[in-house]
Amino acid sequence: MSDLDALIQLLAKLPGLGPRSARRAALHLVKRRETLMQPLAETMLAAAERIRACSICGNLDTGDPCALCSDPRRDPHLICVVEDVADLWAIERTAAFRGRYHVLGGTLSALEGVGPEELRIDALIARATGEVREIILALNATVEGQTTAHYITDRLAGTGVAVSRLAHGVPVGGELDYLDEGTLSAALAQRRPLS
Amino acid sequence: MSDLDALIQLLAKLPGLGPRSARRAALHLVKRRETLMQPLAETMLAAAERIRACSICGNLDTGDPCALCSDPRRDPHLICVVEDVADLWAIERTAAFRGRYHVLGGTLSALEGVGPEELRIDALIARATGEVREIILALNATVEGQTTAHYITDRLAGTGVAVSRLAHGVPVGGELDYLDEGTLSAALAQRRPLS
Repeated sequence: MSDLDALIQLLAKLPGLGPRSARRAALHLVKRRETLMQPLAETMLAAAERIRACSICGNLDTGDPCALCSDPRRDPHLICVVEDVADLWAIERTAAFRGRYHVLGGTLSALEGVGPEELRIDALIARATGEVREIILALNATVEGQTTAHYITDRLAGTGVAVSRLAHGVPVGGELDYLDEGTLSAALAQRRPLS
Repeated sequence: MSDLDALIQLLAKLPGLGPRSARRAALHLVKRRETLMQPLAETMLAAAERIRACSICGNLDTGDPCALCSDPRRDPHLICVVEDVADLWAIERTAAFRGRYHVLGGTLSALEGVGPEELRIDALIARATGEVREIILALNATVEGQTTAHYITDRLAGTGVAVSRLAHGVPVGGELDYLDEGTLSAALAQRRPLS
Protein backbone atom coordinates (compact mmCIF):
# COMPACT_ATOMS: atom_id res chain seq x y z
CA MET A 1 0.00 0.00 0.00
CA SER A 2 1.34 3.43 -0.91
CA ASP A 3 1.96 6.17 1.65
CA LEU A 4 -0.98 8.07 0.23
CA ASP A 5 -3.37 5.12 0.51
CA ALA A 6 -2.16 4.45 4.07
CA LEU A 7 -2.72 8.13 4.93
CA ILE A 8 -6.23 8.09 3.44
CA GLN A 9 -7.16 4.88 5.29
CA LEU A 10 -6.00 6.27 8.64
CA LEU A 11 -7.70 9.64 8.10
CA ALA A 12 -10.95 7.82 7.26
CA LYS A 13 -10.93 6.43 10.82
CA LEU A 14 -11.47 9.91 12.26
CA PRO A 15 -15.06 10.68 13.25
CA GLY A 16 -16.71 12.91 10.66
CA LEU A 17 -14.43 11.90 7.78
CA GLY A 18 -15.76 9.41 5.23
CA PRO A 19 -13.73 7.92 2.37
CA ARG A 20 -14.31 10.94 0.13
CA SER A 21 -13.43 13.58 2.71
CA ALA A 22 -10.43 11.49 3.82
CA ARG A 23 -9.11 11.67 0.25
CA ARG A 24 -9.65 15.44 0.20
CA ALA A 25 -7.95 15.82 3.58
CA ALA A 26 -4.98 13.68 2.47
CA LEU A 27 -4.51 15.78 -0.66
CA HIS A 28 -4.86 18.96 1.37
CA LEU A 29 -2.15 17.69 3.75
CA VAL A 30 0.26 16.56 1.02
CA LYS A 31 0.01 19.95 -0.68
CA ARG A 32 0.79 21.70 2.64
CA ARG A 33 3.46 19.38 3.94
CA GLU A 34 5.53 22.05 5.66
CA THR A 35 2.77 24.33 6.93
CA LEU A 36 0.29 21.68 8.04
CA MET A 37 1.25 18.01 7.62
CA GLN A 38 4.53 18.07 9.53
CA PRO A 39 3.26 20.36 12.35
CA LEU A 40 0.16 18.18 12.74
CA ALA A 41 2.22 14.97 12.81
CA GLU A 42 4.60 16.42 15.40
CA THR A 43 1.73 17.73 17.53
CA MET A 44 0.11 14.30 17.45
CA LEU A 45 3.33 12.59 18.52
CA ALA A 46 3.81 15.13 21.34
CA ALA A 47 0.20 14.68 22.43
CA ALA A 48 0.48 10.87 22.32
CA GLU A 49 3.59 11.17 24.48
CA ARG A 50 2.40 13.73 27.00
CA ILE A 51 -1.39 13.67 27.37
CA ARG A 52 -2.70 11.33 30.04
CA ALA A 53 -5.85 10.84 32.10
CA CYS A 54 -5.86 12.80 35.38
CA SER A 55 -5.66 10.31 38.26
CA ILE A 56 -8.18 12.36 40.26
CA CYS A 57 -10.93 13.32 37.81
CA GLY A 58 -10.15 11.41 34.58
CA ASN A 59 -9.79 14.58 32.46
CA LEU A 60 -7.16 14.43 29.69
CA ASP A 61 -4.24 16.80 30.17
CA THR A 62 -0.46 16.97 30.01
CA GLY A 63 -0.19 17.29 33.78
CA ASP A 64 -1.40 14.92 36.50
CA PRO A 65 -3.34 16.20 38.42
CA CYS A 66 -4.86 18.08 35.48
CA ALA A 67 -5.03 21.88 35.22
CA LEU A 68 -8.62 21.88 36.53
CA CYS A 69 -7.90 19.68 39.57
CA SER A 70 -4.81 21.69 40.49
CA ASP A 71 -6.43 25.12 40.06
CA PRO A 72 -6.87 26.49 43.62
CA ARG A 73 -9.50 29.01 42.43
CA ARG A 74 -11.94 26.22 41.57
CA ASP A 75 -14.54 25.32 44.21
CA PRO A 76 -13.60 21.99 45.87
CA HIS A 77 -17.10 21.63 47.38
CA LEU A 78 -18.73 20.90 44.00
CA ILE A 79 -18.08 17.95 41.69
CA CYS A 80 -19.70 17.79 38.26
CA VAL A 81 -19.92 14.21 36.96
CA VAL A 82 -19.78 13.75 33.17
CA GLU A 83 -19.71 10.72 30.89
CA ASP A 84 -16.88 11.85 28.67
CA VAL A 85 -14.12 14.48 28.36
CA ALA A 86 -16.09 16.03 25.47
CA ASP A 87 -18.92 16.78 27.94
CA LEU A 88 -16.41 18.36 30.34
CA TRP A 89 -15.20 20.61 27.50
CA ALA A 90 -18.79 21.52 26.64
CA ILE A 91 -19.46 22.62 30.23
CA GLU A 92 -16.14 24.50 30.43
CA ARG A 93 -17.09 26.45 27.28
CA THR A 94 -20.15 27.82 29.13
CA ALA A 95 -17.93 29.23 31.94
CA ALA A 96 -20.99 28.62 34.17
CA PHE A 97 -19.31 26.06 36.42
CA ARG A 98 -16.25 26.72 38.58
CA GLY A 99 -16.10 23.50 40.63
CA ARG A 100 -14.26 20.23 39.99
CA TYR A 101 -15.12 17.41 37.58
CA HIS A 102 -15.29 13.64 37.52
CA VAL A 103 -15.20 11.84 34.17
CA LEU A 104 -16.90 8.42 34.29
CA GLY A 105 -15.63 7.20 30.95
CA GLY A 106 -19.06 6.08 29.73
CA THR A 107 -22.41 4.94 31.04
CA LEU A 108 -23.73 1.68 32.43
CA SER A 109 -25.04 -0.49 29.63
CA ALA A 110 -26.19 -4.08 30.09
CA LEU A 111 -26.39 -4.39 26.29
CA GLU A 112 -22.76 -3.46 25.77
CA GLY A 113 -21.56 -5.22 28.91
CA VAL A 114 -20.52 -2.03 30.73
CA GLY A 115 -20.85 -2.55 34.47
CA PRO A 116 -19.90 -0.22 37.37
CA GLU A 117 -16.35 -1.62 37.48
CA GLU A 118 -15.75 -0.50 33.86
CA LEU A 119 -16.50 3.12 34.85
CA ARG A 120 -14.74 5.42 37.33
CA ILE A 121 -17.60 5.08 39.82
CA ASP A 122 -15.63 3.70 42.79
CA ALA A 123 -13.20 6.60 42.39
CA LEU A 124 -16.15 9.01 42.51
CA ILE A 125 -17.57 7.43 45.69
CA ALA A 126 -14.10 7.67 47.24
CA ARG A 127 -14.03 11.41 46.47
CA ALA A 128 -17.45 11.98 48.14
CA THR A 129 -15.98 12.72 51.54
CA GLY A 130 -14.67 15.65 53.52
CA GLU A 131 -15.07 18.96 51.74
CA VAL A 132 -17.38 17.77 48.91
CA ARG A 133 -20.91 19.10 49.51
CA GLU A 134 -22.69 18.54 46.20
CA ILE A 135 -22.30 16.20 43.26
CA ILE A 136 -23.99 17.37 40.06
CA LEU A 137 -24.78 14.49 37.67
CA ALA A 138 -24.40 16.11 34.22
CA LEU A 139 -25.17 12.89 32.32
CA ASN A 140 -26.90 12.63 28.98
CA ALA A 141 -30.69 12.48 29.13
CA THR A 142 -30.63 9.01 27.57
CA VAL A 143 -31.76 5.70 29.11
CA GLU A 144 -28.13 4.75 29.81
CA GLY A 145 -27.33 8.19 31.26
CA GLN A 146 -30.35 8.09 33.57
CA THR A 147 -29.68 4.48 34.65
CA THR A 148 -26.14 5.52 35.54
CA ALA A 149 -27.44 8.56 37.43
CA HIS A 150 -29.78 6.36 39.51
CA TYR A 151 -27.01 3.90 40.27
CA ILE A 152 -24.65 6.67 41.42
CA THR A 153 -27.39 8.28 43.52
CA ASP A 154 -27.94 4.93 45.29
CA ARG A 155 -24.23 4.49 45.89
CA LEU A 156 -23.96 8.00 47.33
CA ALA A 157 -26.87 7.52 49.76
CA GLY A 158 -25.67 7.94 53.34
CA THR A 159 -22.53 9.89 52.47
CA GLY A 160 -24.24 13.18 53.34
CA VAL A 161 -23.34 14.62 49.96
CA ALA A 162 -26.20 16.33 48.08
CA VAL A 163 -26.82 14.93 44.59
CA SER A 164 -28.39 16.97 41.78
CA ARG A 165 -28.94 16.68 38.06
CA LEU A 166 -29.16 19.18 35.20
CA ALA A 167 -32.54 20.85 34.63
CA HIS A 168 -34.73 19.69 31.76
CA GLY A 169 -36.46 22.36 29.71
CA VAL A 170 -36.77 24.33 26.52
CA PRO A 171 -33.37 24.96 24.87
CA VAL A 172 -32.52 28.66 24.68
CA GLY A 173 -33.63 29.80 21.23
CA GLY A 174 -35.70 26.64 20.81
CA GLU A 175 -39.20 26.54 19.38
CA LEU A 176 -41.95 24.75 21.31
CA ASP A 177 -43.42 23.30 18.12
CA TYR A 178 -40.25 21.29 17.49
CA LEU A 179 -39.81 20.00 21.05
CA ASP A 180 -40.63 16.45 22.06
CA GLU A 181 -43.44 15.90 24.59
CA GLY A 182 -41.08 14.72 27.34
CA THR A 183 -39.04 17.90 27.30
CA LEU A 184 -42.13 20.10 27.08
CA SER A 185 -43.79 18.27 30.01
CA ALA A 186 -40.63 18.68 32.08
CA ALA A 187 -40.41 22.38 31.17
CA LEU A 188 -44.04 22.87 32.25
CA ALA A 189 -43.66 20.93 35.51
CA GLN A 190 -40.48 22.82 36.40
CA ARG A 191 -41.77 26.27 35.36
CA ARG A 192 -40.15 29.24 37.05
CA PRO A 193 -41.89 32.35 38.44
CA LEU A 194 -41.34 35.56 36.47
CA SER A 195 -40.76 37.64 39.57
CA MET B 1 -1.41 26.69 24.35
CA SER B 2 -1.81 23.09 25.46
CA ASP B 3 -0.99 20.09 23.28
CA LEU B 4 -4.69 19.35 23.01
CA ASP B 5 -5.58 22.88 21.90
CA ALA B 6 -2.75 22.83 19.36
CA LEU B 7 -3.99 19.48 18.04
CA ILE B 8 -7.56 20.77 17.74
CA GLN B 9 -6.45 23.95 15.95
CA LEU B 10 -4.41 22.00 13.40
CA LEU B 11 -7.15 19.41 12.83
CA ALA B 12 -9.65 22.23 12.22
CA LYS B 13 -7.56 23.26 9.19
CA LEU B 14 -8.46 20.03 7.39
CA PRO B 15 -11.23 20.39 4.81
CA GLY B 16 -14.50 19.03 6.15
CA LEU B 17 -13.60 19.49 9.83
CA GLY B 18 -15.07 22.47 11.69
CA PRO B 19 -14.21 23.44 15.28
CA ARG B 20 -16.69 20.94 16.73
CA SER B 21 -15.64 17.96 14.64
CA ALA B 22 -11.97 18.88 15.20
CA ARG B 23 -12.57 18.57 18.95
CA ARG B 24 -14.27 15.21 18.45
CA ALA B 25 -11.42 14.03 16.20
CA ALA B 26 -8.79 15.17 18.73
CA LEU B 27 -10.51 13.29 21.54
CA HIS B 28 -10.89 10.22 19.31
CA LEU B 29 -7.15 10.38 18.57
CA VAL B 30 -6.04 10.88 22.17
CA LYS B 31 -8.11 7.90 23.27
CA ARG B 32 -6.51 5.74 20.56
CA ARG B 33 -2.96 6.96 20.83
CA GLU B 34 -1.32 3.64 20.03
CA THR B 35 -3.75 2.29 17.47
CA LEU B 36 -4.44 5.50 15.55
CA MET B 37 -2.67 8.68 16.67
CA GLN B 38 0.92 7.42 16.48
CA PRO B 39 0.42 5.44 13.22
CA LEU B 40 -1.27 8.46 11.62
CA ALA B 41 1.50 10.82 12.76
CA GLU B 42 4.18 8.48 11.46
CA THR B 43 2.37 7.99 8.15
CA MET B 44 2.09 11.75 7.76
CA LEU B 45 5.80 12.23 8.42
CA ALA B 46 6.67 9.45 5.95
CA ALA B 47 4.33 10.96 3.36
CA ALA B 48 5.73 14.46 3.88
CA GLU B 49 9.19 13.02 3.38
CA ARG B 50 8.54 10.78 0.42
CA ILE B 51 5.60 11.99 -1.65
CA ARG B 52 6.50 14.39 -4.44
CA ALA B 53 4.98 15.68 -7.66
CA CYS B 54 5.86 13.55 -10.70
CA SER B 55 8.16 15.58 -12.97
CA ILE B 56 6.33 14.28 -16.05
CA CYS B 57 2.62 14.45 -15.23
CA GLY B 58 2.36 16.29 -11.88
CA ASN B 59 0.68 13.37 -10.07
CA LEU B 60 1.63 12.92 -6.40
CA ASP B 61 3.51 9.71 -5.65
CA THR B 62 6.51 8.35 -3.77
CA GLY B 63 8.36 7.63 -7.02
CA ASP B 64 9.40 10.02 -9.79
CA PRO B 65 8.24 9.24 -12.47
CA CYS B 66 5.02 8.23 -10.72
CA ALA B 67 3.55 4.72 -10.86
CA LEU B 68 1.18 5.75 -13.67
CA CYS B 69 3.88 7.33 -15.86
CA SER B 70 6.21 4.36 -15.40
CA ASP B 71 3.57 1.68 -16.02
CA PRO B 72 4.41 0.21 -19.46
CA ARG B 73 0.88 -1.21 -19.81
CA ARG B 74 -0.64 2.27 -20.00
CA ASP B 75 -1.26 3.72 -23.46
CA PRO B 76 1.35 6.42 -24.22
CA HIS B 77 -0.72 7.74 -27.16
CA LEU B 78 -3.37 9.24 -24.89
CA ILE B 79 -2.97 12.02 -22.30
CA CYS B 80 -5.84 13.00 -20.03
CA VAL B 81 -5.49 16.57 -18.72
CA VAL B 82 -6.97 17.27 -15.26
CA GLU B 83 -6.99 20.31 -12.99
CA ASP B 84 -6.04 18.53 -9.81
CA VAL B 85 -4.76 15.21 -8.45
CA ALA B 86 -8.22 14.63 -6.94
CA ASP B 87 -9.65 14.60 -10.48
CA LEU B 88 -6.98 12.11 -11.56
CA TRP B 89 -8.02 9.85 -8.66
CA ALA B 90 -11.68 10.22 -9.64
CA ILE B 91 -10.92 9.06 -13.20
CA GLU B 92 -8.70 6.22 -11.97
CA ARG B 93 -11.58 4.96 -9.80
CA THR B 94 -13.69 4.49 -12.94
CA ALA B 95 -11.02 2.20 -14.49
CA ALA B 96 -12.30 3.54 -17.85
CA PHE B 97 -9.05 5.23 -18.86
CA ARG B 98 -5.74 3.44 -19.38
CA GLY B 99 -3.64 6.24 -20.87
CA ARG B 100 -1.35 8.80 -19.22
CA TYR B 101 -2.25 11.95 -17.27
CA HIS B 102 -1.22 15.57 -17.02
CA VAL B 103 -2.11 17.54 -13.88
CA LEU B 104 -2.37 21.29 -14.53
CA GLY B 105 -2.46 22.34 -10.88
CA GLY B 106 -5.50 24.58 -11.32
CA THR B 107 -7.29 26.61 -13.98
CA LEU B 108 -6.68 29.98 -15.56
CA SER B 109 -8.37 32.70 -13.54
CA ALA B 110 -7.95 36.40 -14.21
CA LEU B 111 -9.78 37.10 -10.95
CA GLU B 112 -7.31 35.11 -8.85
CA GLY B 113 -4.31 36.12 -10.92
CA VAL B 114 -3.63 32.62 -12.28
CA GLY B 115 -2.00 32.89 -15.71
CA PRO B 116 -0.62 30.15 -17.99
CA GLU B 117 2.80 30.32 -16.34
CA GLU B 118 1.25 29.39 -12.95
CA LEU B 119 -0.05 26.12 -14.43
CA ARG B 120 1.80 23.18 -15.97
CA ILE B 121 0.70 24.17 -19.49
CA ASP B 122 4.15 24.61 -21.08
CA ALA B 123 5.02 21.13 -19.82
CA LEU B 124 1.87 19.77 -21.48
CA ILE B 125 2.69 21.43 -24.82
CA ALA B 126 6.20 19.97 -24.58
CA ARG B 127 4.68 16.48 -24.15
CA ALA B 128 2.46 16.89 -27.26
CA THR B 129 5.01 15.44 -29.65
CA GLY B 130 6.06 12.06 -30.98
CA GLU B 131 3.85 9.23 -29.83
CA VAL B 132 1.02 11.33 -28.33
CA ARG B 133 -2.05 11.17 -30.61
CA GLU B 134 -4.87 12.54 -28.48
CA ILE B 135 -5.16 14.88 -25.52
CA ILE B 136 -8.43 14.61 -23.56
CA LEU B 137 -9.26 17.76 -21.62
CA ALA B 138 -11.05 16.43 -18.52
CA LEU B 139 -11.54 19.87 -16.98
CA ASN B 140 -14.43 20.96 -14.81
CA ALA B 141 -17.44 22.31 -16.71
CA THR B 142 -16.99 25.70 -15.06
CA VAL B 143 -16.16 29.04 -16.68
CA GLU B 144 -12.53 28.71 -15.55
CA GLY B 145 -12.30 25.11 -16.71
CA GLN B 146 -13.70 25.95 -20.13
CA THR B 147 -11.47 29.04 -20.50
CA THR B 148 -8.47 26.87 -19.72
CA ALA B 149 -9.65 24.25 -22.23
CA HIS B 150 -9.91 26.89 -24.96
CA TYR B 151 -6.48 28.26 -24.16
CA ILE B 152 -4.89 24.80 -24.29
CA THR B 153 -6.69 23.96 -27.54
CA ASP B 154 -5.26 27.14 -29.11
CA ARG B 155 -1.77 26.32 -27.88
CA LEU B 156 -2.01 22.79 -29.29
CA ALA B 157 -3.14 23.96 -32.76
CA GLY B 158 -0.60 22.87 -35.37
CA THR B 159 0.97 20.12 -33.27
CA GLY B 160 -1.11 17.49 -35.09
CA VAL B 161 -2.40 16.11 -31.78
CA ALA B 162 -6.17 15.58 -31.58
CA VAL B 163 -7.86 17.41 -28.71
CA SER B 164 -11.12 16.22 -27.12
CA ARG B 165 -13.20 16.98 -24.07
CA LEU B 166 -15.52 14.95 -21.83
CA ALA B 167 -19.10 14.50 -23.04
CA HIS B 168 -21.87 16.53 -21.47
CA GLY B 169 -25.10 14.73 -20.68
CA VAL B 170 -27.50 13.26 -18.18
CA PRO B 171 -25.65 11.73 -15.19
CA VAL B 172 -26.22 7.98 -14.90
CA GLY B 173 -29.12 7.55 -12.49
CA GLY B 174 -30.00 11.25 -12.86
CA GLU B 175 -33.53 12.57 -13.23
CA LEU B 176 -34.33 14.97 -16.08
CA ASP B 177 -36.55 17.08 -13.87
CA TYR B 178 -33.59 18.03 -11.66
CA LEU B 179 -31.15 18.81 -14.49
CA ASP B 180 -30.21 22.34 -15.50
CA GLU B 181 -31.18 23.52 -18.99
CA GLY B 182 -27.58 23.63 -20.23
CA THR B 183 -26.93 19.98 -19.47
CA LEU B 184 -30.28 18.91 -20.89
CA SER B 185 -29.69 20.91 -24.10
CA ALA B 186 -26.25 19.32 -24.48
CA ALA B 187 -27.68 15.86 -23.85
CA LEU B 188 -30.33 16.44 -26.53
CA ALA B 189 -27.88 17.84 -29.09
CA GLN B 190 -25.45 14.98 -28.51
CA ARG B 191 -28.12 12.24 -28.44
CA ARG B 192 -26.96 8.75 -29.39
CA PRO B 193 -28.77 6.27 -31.66
CA LEU B 194 -30.28 3.23 -29.94
CA SER B 195 -29.01 0.81 -32.54
